[in-house]
Amino acid sequence: MSPLILNIVRRETLQLSKKILPRKRYSTVQSSIPKFESILGKDAVATKEAVRKQFSRDEGHLLPRLPTVVLSPTSVEQVAAVVRVCNEQSIPVVAYGTGTGLEGGSMSLKDGVCLSTAAIEGGICEVNEADFDVSVRPSVTRKQLNTHIRNTGLFFPVDPGADASLCGMVATSASGTNAVRYGTMKENVRNLEVVLADGSVLYTRGKGARPRKSAAGYNLTDLFIGSEGTLGIITKAILKLHPRPQAQSVALCHFPTVAEAVNSVVETLQMGVPIARIEFLDHVQVAACNKYSHLTLAEQPTLALEFHGQTDAEVGQQAQVVGDICAQNNGSAFEWSTELEEMEKLWTARHNAYYAALAMRTGAVGFTTDVCVPITKLAETIVATRKDLDETGLKGVIVGHVGDGNFHVILPVFEENEEEMKVVHAFSDRLVRRALSANGTCTGEHGIGVGKIQYLAEEFGPIGVQTMKRIKAALDPKNILNPGKVFA
Amino acid sequence: MSPLILNIVRRETLQLSKKILPRKRYSTVQSSIPKFESILGKDAVATKEAVRKQFSRDEGHLLPRLPTVVLSPTSVEQVAAVVRVCNEQSIPVVAYGTGTGLEGGSMSLKDGVCLSTAAIEGGICEVNEADFDVSVRPSVTRKQLNTHIRNTGLFFPVDPGADASLCGMVATSASGTNAVRYGTMKENVRNLEVVLADGSVLYTRGKGARPRKSAAGYNLTDLFIGSEGTLGIITKAILKLHPRPQAQSVALCHFPTVAEAVNSVVETLQMGVPIARIEFLDHVQVAACNKYSHLTLAEQPTLALEFHGQTDAEVGQQAQVVGDICAQNNGSAFEWSTELEEMEKLWTARHNAYYAALAMRTGAVGFTTDVCVPITKLAETIVATRKDLDETGLKGVIVGHVGDGNFHVILPVFEENEEEMKVVHAFSDRLVRRALSANGTCTGEHGIGVGKIQYLAEEFGPIGVQTMKRIKAALDPKNILNPGKVFA
Repeated sequence: MSPLILNIVRRETLQLSKKILPRKRYSTVQSSIPKFESILGKDAVATKEAVRKQFSRDEGHLLPRLPTVVLSPTSVEQVAAVVRVCNEQSIPVVAYGTGTGLEGGSMSLKDGVCLSTAAIEGGICEVNEADFDVSVRPSVTRKQLNTHIRNTGLFFPVDPGADASLCGMVATSASGTNAVRYGTMKENVRNLEVVLADGSVLYTRGKGARPRKSAAGYNLTDLFIGSEGTLGIITKAILKLHPRPQAQSVALCHFPTVAEAVNSVVETLQMGVPIARIEFLDHVQVAACNKYSHLTLAEQPTLALEFHGQTDAEVGQQAQVVGDICAQNNGSAFEWSTELEEMEKLWTARHNAYYAALAMRTGAVGFTTDVCVPITKLAETIVATRKDLDETGLKGVIVGHVGDGNFHVILPVFEENEEEMKVVHAFSDRLVRRALSANGTCTGEHGIGVGKIQYLAEEFGPIGVQTMKRIKAALDPKNILNPGKVFA
Repeated sequence: MSPLILNIVRRETLQLSKKILPRKRYSTVQSSIPKFESILGKDAVATKEAVRKQFSRDEGHLLPRLPTVVLSPTSVEQVAAVVRVCNEQSIPVVAYGTGTGLEGGSMSLKDGVCLSTAAIEGGICEVNEADFDVSVRPSVTRKQLNTHIRNTGLFFPVDPGADASLCGMVATSASGTNAVRYGTMKENVRNLEVVLADGSVLYTRGKGARPRKSAAGYNLTDLFIGSEGTLGIITKAILKLHPRPQAQSVALCHFPTVAEAVNSVVETLQMGVPIARIEFLDHVQVAACNKYSHLTLAEQPTLALEFHGQTDAEVGQQAQVVGDICAQNNGSAFEWSTELEEMEKLWTARHNAYYAALAMRTGAVGFTTDVCVPITKLAETIVATRKDLDETGLKGVIVGHVGDGNFHVILPVFEENEEEMKVVHAFSDRLVRRALSANGTCTGEHGIGVGKIQYLAEEFGPIGVQTMKRIKAALDPKNILNPGKVFA
């Protein structure tokens, strides 16, 4: 490893990487660089520090680690050829999309190849409007796709916030605000093209197949969704599209207590209202938003809701039902709107939640955690988490995709302050354990990456982790694909 | 193998089983019977022919094969202990639920254990209404579950027709008429308890966990859904429940051509109508239904539709939109009803489709096939299939879950007529290849079992099958779990 980067490697990361790769001996990548150059051409092989730095981190709180070399293949054949060399030579290879992850999943922990997928040609290969599907290469982000298909009456709904690569979203099992209606990536993929560890090319549902359902063979597609680059490199995804709603409305509602807000969510789901977004902001988050965006919202537990339908009548009906439910749970007057400008104003608070939270401490960066619990455990989990924050003296806010029981804590932190970071990590530990003891999961959507490896074993137990490791060893016997991620 | 059963083994099955297990040497089960008796008690170990016969076939067209012994464990611990013995002794073990499959997935091909899951105690272990989930043991069928929860306002939607064991439905990735709105089993499972080949007990999402979503680790849950007992034995499933619709209506509509019927389906989906069921019957099926149920329906390509909503207004709105679409596609006057009695009358044709088809040839049994194609290829695939049937002179009908592109051909056959069965199998071959060349799959919902092994390789290619086999070998190195199924 270059001495240049040692000073910016965070202590925790180093400890983890030592623990992860104790017995595995990897070759150094340097001797294979001529091979990579002959496969890709010299321009697609970057060893300059400036380039490696661009691929050294994601948007999470882990400090950067520079890969040894950054490769930019332009075709699946080139990806396969590179991976074949890496497998022969036992060189770690880490796929890198847009770098918008939060748990270090695309970071290179070890001397090895960072395989940037952004240059793979083809982009949006095929749009099948009447079949509601589309084929995309890893260079395509979700916003690019939605811009491209804006005149078809269809859209791709999964929205993790960041404008991530769609293939990267497959690899990390992304979800976000409207998963409550449209599902996560898990529910929105038809087929995948994947380069395996030995350089062979797999089509998880057979080449070109895109039926809406199938009962043939093992579900390989979902095995690769959320595998975080540890089982193969996704080079094409066939995704499902949805009819774009012709009518929308949004609403804001404030509640005296967290429990009343969450109860409104449960009752809304029980009524079968196909709500598109139902987001929670705790009172500290609302206060931060008021200050940041110059709003005058009631500083109480708040729901921001969005309704989708094909007609205004349909959307109005949904808003009516949910408005009644919120009123019965002591919610404030239910402000709702179908006007674009007004909708945007109402969503301002939620959209700027992250920046508003950071602004609570000038110069701080964001430490964002993510857990998910059954909805009946949500109120008590949020209340306990708020109490923990207050007692610990941490300035954090709670926001969440509450229709799924998924919430985040955003903490504005100074990462170089070791004492503070200890307190933050201890809080994060307690949060995860609280979620696990409530029959939940240590991550609803951010993934395991490096940051949550220690919790995987607690969540799945030894048989669960062993089963995953057996699958990993069967498909990647030399452990070259993103080593040190998901499990140690 | 007992000579008693040789005479009822179908030629194709024998050929397959020879091909499947050429090198694998299994122990005979006889010497382990005392061990099974000590684990389960003598009453739970059946070697009598009468009992073995009950577990010798499913509802498909494959002729029976008697297992050597039928075991009826009452707990997951007993299942684990039995499987541990089987693994140590290299004895094949085949899980058997309600035996309502169609492709021989639960049939014992080899001297070995048939593990009946019906006696596992616990039934419906836990209903979490506000979290929309329920835990069930394999003894529970879908109708039993829906009866049990009828007062909760919730229901379990997946409906493959047969009153199958819910855990069996997980193992076979069942779906059915209302998958178009509620998804297949794939979309309706939160967590599984599975006994692995070595007798260890896996919780695919961690013990007791039931979050609505998670991004932690590999998606083991979906790996077991549809694995047909080849990767583990499912002993408990945590399933998702849905709000029971408060309002329903059904409609029938006849079309001049298959294309116009299918186009109406595509447009309905494009409009975002959350239709609950949209079933196709070809003109021969309608004619058979008329005769069988004394109806006077127009003998044309027909759609039977069902709408679900929370209010009559919502359902009326859906029916209005779809009625307009059908009219524009030259559909007949759109009869629809919200009256229970009237709804049942309208659905009679679809409900009795199978028996009506059989009644076309007195004394015949049903040979049912199943393929699925993208919706844009559905009309041409159905038209070509109808033409093939007519040209071949086979009396078959076409019915389908057309919102998913999934359709069945039901052929009344005389299985002992070898010449006829050759023609039937050749037709079925052409049907599958037609589906594959239309970017579809060889089975939308019936699974691979024994009957469709030969098509798996065509559909997935060598890398796909090899990947599945690697996973199988990693989790079941001695190939004791349902050997000879899914792949050879």
